Amino acid sequence: MSVSPAPIQVVQKNLLIECPDSKGLIAQITNICYKHQLNIIRNTEYVCPVSGQFFMRTQLEGVFNDDVLLYELDRALPQGSERRLLARRPKRMIILVTKESHCLGDILMKVFDGSLPIEIVAVIGNHPHLATLVERFDLPYHWISHQGLSRREHEQAIQSMIDNYAVDYIVLAKYLRILSPEFVHTYRERIINIHHSFLPAFVGAFPYRQAFERGVKIIGATAHFVTSGLDEGPIIKQMVTNVDHNYSAEDMARAGRDVEKNVLSKALQLICEDRVFVHGNKTVIL
Amino acid sequence: MSVSPAPIQVVQKNLLIECPDSKGLIAQITNICYKHQLNIIRNTEYVCPVSGQFFMRTQLEGVFNDDVLLYELDRALPQGSERRLLARRPKRMIILVTKESHCLGDILMKVFDGSLPIEIVAVIGNHPHLATLVERFDLPYHWISHQGLSRREHEQAIQSMIDNYAVDYIVLAKYLRILSPEFVHTYRERIINIHHSFLPAFVGAFPYRQAFERGVKIIGATAHFVTSGLDEGPIIKQMVTNVDHNYSAEDMARAGRDVEKNVLSKALQLICEDRVFVHGNKTVIL
Amino acid sequence: MSVSPAPIQVVQKNLLIECPDSKGLIAQITNICYKHQLNIIRNTEYVCPVSGQFFMRTQLEGVFNDDVLLYELDRALPQGSERRLLARRPKRMIILVTKESHCLGDILMKVFDGSLPIEIVAVIGNHPHLATLVERFDLPYHWISHQGLSRREHEQAIQSMIDNYAVDYIVLAKYLRILSPEFVHTYRERIINIHHSFLPAFVGAFPYRQAFERGVKIIGATAHFVTSGLDEGPIIKQMVTNVDHNYSAEDMARAGRDVEKNVLSKALQLICEDRVFVHGNKTVIL
Amino acid sequence: MSVSPAPIQVVQKNLLIECPDSKGLIAQITNICYKHQLNIIRNTEYVCPVSGQFFMRTQLEGVFNDDVLLYELDRALPQGSERRLLARRPKRMIILVTKESHCLGDILMKVFDGSLPIEIVAVIGNHPHLATLVERFDLPYHWISHQGLSRREHEQAIQSMIDNYAVDYIVLAKYLRILSPEFVHTYRERIINIHHSFLPAFVGAFPYRQAFERGVKIIGATAHFVTSGLDEGPIIKQMVTNVDHNYSAEDMARAGRDVEKNVLSKALQLICEDRVFVHGNKTVIL
Repeated sequence: MSVSPAPIQVVQKNLLIECPDSKGLIAQITNICYKHQLNIIRNTEYVCPVSGQFFMRTQLEGVFNDDVLLYELDRALPQGSERRLLARRPKRMIILVTKESHCLGDILMKVFDGSLPIEIVAVIGNHPHLATLVERFDLPYHWISHQGLSRREHEQAIQSMIDNYAVDYIVLAKYLRILSPEFVHTYRERIINIHHSFLPAFVGAFPYRQAFERGVKIIGATAHFVTSGLDEGPIIKQMVTNVDHNYSAEDMARAGRDVEKNVLSKALQLICEDRVFVHGNKTVIL
Repeated sequence: MSVSPAPIQVVQKNLLIECPDSKGLIAQITNICYKHQLNIIRNTEYVCPVSGQFFMRTQLEGVFNDDVLLYELDRALPQGSERRLLARRPKRMIILVTKESHCLGDILMKVFDGSLPIEIVAVIGNHPHLATLVERFDLPYHWISHQGLSRREHEQAIQSMIDNYAVDYIVLAKYLRILSPEFVHTYRERIINIHHSFLPAFVGAFPYRQAFERGVKIIGATAHFVTSGLDEGPIIKQMVTNVDHNYSAEDMARAGRDVEKNVLSKALQLICEDRVFVHGNKTVIL
Repeated sequence: MSVSPAPIQVVQKNLLIECPDSKGLIAQITNICYKHQLNIIRNTEYVCPVSGQFFMRTQLEGVFNDDVLLYELDRALPQGSERRLLARRPKRMIILVTKESHCLGDILMKVFDGSLPIEIVAVIGNHPHLATLVERFDLPYHWISHQGLSRREHEQAIQSMIDNYAVDYIVLAKYLRILSPEFVHTYRERIINIHHSFLPAFVGAFPYRQAFERGVKIIGATAHFVTSGLDEGPIIKQMVTNVDHNYSAEDMARAGRDVEKNVLSKALQLICEDRVFVHGNKTVIL
Repeated sequence: MSVSPAPIQVVQKNLLIECPDSKGLIAQITNICYKHQLNIIRNTEYVCPVSGQFFMRTQLEGVFNDDVLLYELDRALPQGSERRLLARRPKRMIILVTKESHCLGDILMKVFDGSLPIEIVAVIGNHPHLATLVERFDLPYHWISHQGLSRREHEQAIQSMIDNYAVDYIVLAKYLRILSPEFVHTYRERIINIHHSFLPAFVGAFPYRQAFERGVKIIGATAHFVTSGLDEGPIIKQMVTNVDHNYSAEDMARAGRDVEKNVLSKALQLICEDRVFVHGNKTVIL
């Protein structure tokens, strides 16, 4: 679905740059954009005070000559720079689920009404429960059971399926199985998970039970990139809601489901807009 | 400062009851109140589904005969009940501080303008820094340095000072020393701490540093009763605020200070209104 | 779908009482419940300090003899009391829509996954746009166009359809036509609307446009009962989200859609739990 | 108190630019900064899609030659540009109050502990009530009664006092008198007010009373620049808090006071950091 605009068409693209900071970087980059007669719609930068790494997201409008633009940027930027020039097209995402429908449902509904500009290429479940929901939206559902398979075998089956689709991102929408470091490594910085707690509180499988037992007055949810450490990847978005002693663990889970789906949708929205950089175990959102 | 109203005066008192649940409890209790011609201004109950413990807060108005009322309640309530009938008077609180003024300052200001109905009997600091602030509000400041003293010796000095004042509660308004189990036990369920994180995330002395390093998108603060486990006592109130990658650990600390002072004030407000029950390691707020 | 439990079955019901306040009311009511050997799971009361009206919601568990219970309550309660004893069953709701799907979609999804205990009997739209979505969930969609009809004629067509279904509530899930006082009167306190602003700010059809032009930093949404005054009925629930100068009116509308759907779902949840009393132009949520 | 750093000292300054948008602006500006060997610590821009106005805030670090830098910027920037190069120094603010202390108190406390980098030059009250509080912080309090004076006479007395102090901003910290258009015009975009409602809801003097009567579920407060229309100036910051039917108008006022003080402090913080541009009746916060 990649869009190749005819050369004389005015379009918008996002230029993402990441490199060691040095004086004059913004001038150099924006000079090149100006030379290409590109208009800057929105520009945001960040320099990490700890690492000295420079991040810049520039929303450009004009007639693009990608090859020349990137060549000139490469000549201007310091060693070790990364730059991406991203056309506006829906990101291709595959969604992994287990049995719970609320996060998946919110994404389906937002794609249905056009408010989330992603393309869901398919949904994979390790249980069959959500097949009928997905099929109501005319999308393929692949039931890949983990029964009788080792973790690696199951993941390889999933991986084969994913690789059929040339996806940009893998979204774990309440996929409740832990992924192996190998799997995570294969899709580095491309797997997004929703964890049903306000991380780093309540890592693991039963956060609402833990929250209930601890007697917290606020619960939350966290959308993050998946790394090999359990629930430890770079956080993209967090949201919370108030609870009180009247909430059982089940009530917390119910209240939490709304937070989970809202957080995950907002994280995907940020991803769609090319606003999320990964920097070590953190994100920079420009 | 306990207020003994003349018997024919109409006043308000809070009746707090805690006992094992059984059928008819509310009827029995409210019957007795009715027999005493007491009007129920507000009534709240809670039964813990795990322990089966019943909690009730009844805001009563009328002419009280405390002895008879309590005698009749004791006869009606099951074994193991606790009941308190509390006249409306400012709670006497002593505040412990180290060097930071924001939580103390907020309490001072609220007592000054009458919006927090407590009586600050004195402020104790293990450093002299906040003496001038406290004295501006015409309150005693006791500098009890920990220098050259063992932890128990220092606590005994503090305890002697506290016991001069007949306080209801001890408020740790950014008092940064860990209290011994002995000290905590002496003032069981009467010590309130403000912890500068959204517990149980980031226990310990450097939560903003940890929050910065983890790259969280929300920070918070927690007011809780102090128990012998570090930052593990029953939570009274939690509040949060959004942060992003632009926040250094220092920026988080600054944003967090506003949350801390707001949470602590709100927790003290709940305490003042006799709304906080401790139940195991949780609170029930009626 | 009304459920008639066999007489010896232990069930839960909600007793809702509203009457002028007088001393001893709670005792009288809970005495009767106790006499019937009903266990009080949760009990909440409120007395309006302005009107002196008393409200009470009692969640009861046991074997009910409805007729005797209500007879005895009627004898005990003062003149002008209203009492309802409501069995636990999904409320029957009909949903009115125009073209936007987000509020409808959230309700559909929550009913699908069982997290909102309502029964959607049908969806009525004045446009055909949402028919396919509704049919995906195997529910009837009635397109009742307003083209060529007077307002009253259109409403009468809708009313005929509604009256086929014996509904408890009518939910305006972004139904963008103004209802006549006659229609509103017919379903008094039974029509719930979601208004896309933080009322009373920005009454009318274009709140996001107005919010953008005013340069507000927070936008919101309001679920309320419909009365004959435009956007003036009793408010059930409000929620907000932060915006800034980067938000166009369209961005505000997009951010607002998430708030709208969350507010409406939460309001319906409160309705389902029999927690919402209407008192003049306000609600009391017990 | 203006600071004139010696020419060879490395300092930080904020460059604020406002002009009609055109291609290459960021390149031109950052080129000049680079030529001056100034390091860009943080840079934010905004182009208003309605007016086409460009706004840019650049946090610079280096050795400044102000005159040459500004001269070169003036040559590069289009007609109708405004540019300011602001050294880091505490803004001088005078505070106007009536009787309520909570907003004033929060500012005093934050200046006391160094968390709000402003210089309070004096406090003016139309009542004497807050004199002792201000004097506790060793600041001048000027009681300028409005008794027996016309509005203009009273304002002229205030204006004379203000003009003694060469202030940057005038802060209305619950100053409850309406200012004349003449007064407002004299200090255009320099008067900051805290209004005790979530504007544009509840304009005027009794917002909590109105909020109570409307039965809202959220209340708020708004910090804004003062213009001649009542409560209509550009909004800087808004915050809210939840309320319910249990809140009387007085309870709302008490809960609101915390929101008011927090909003006003946050607005002043933004002002201190040179982050607030006024654009028509809105603000742009960079």
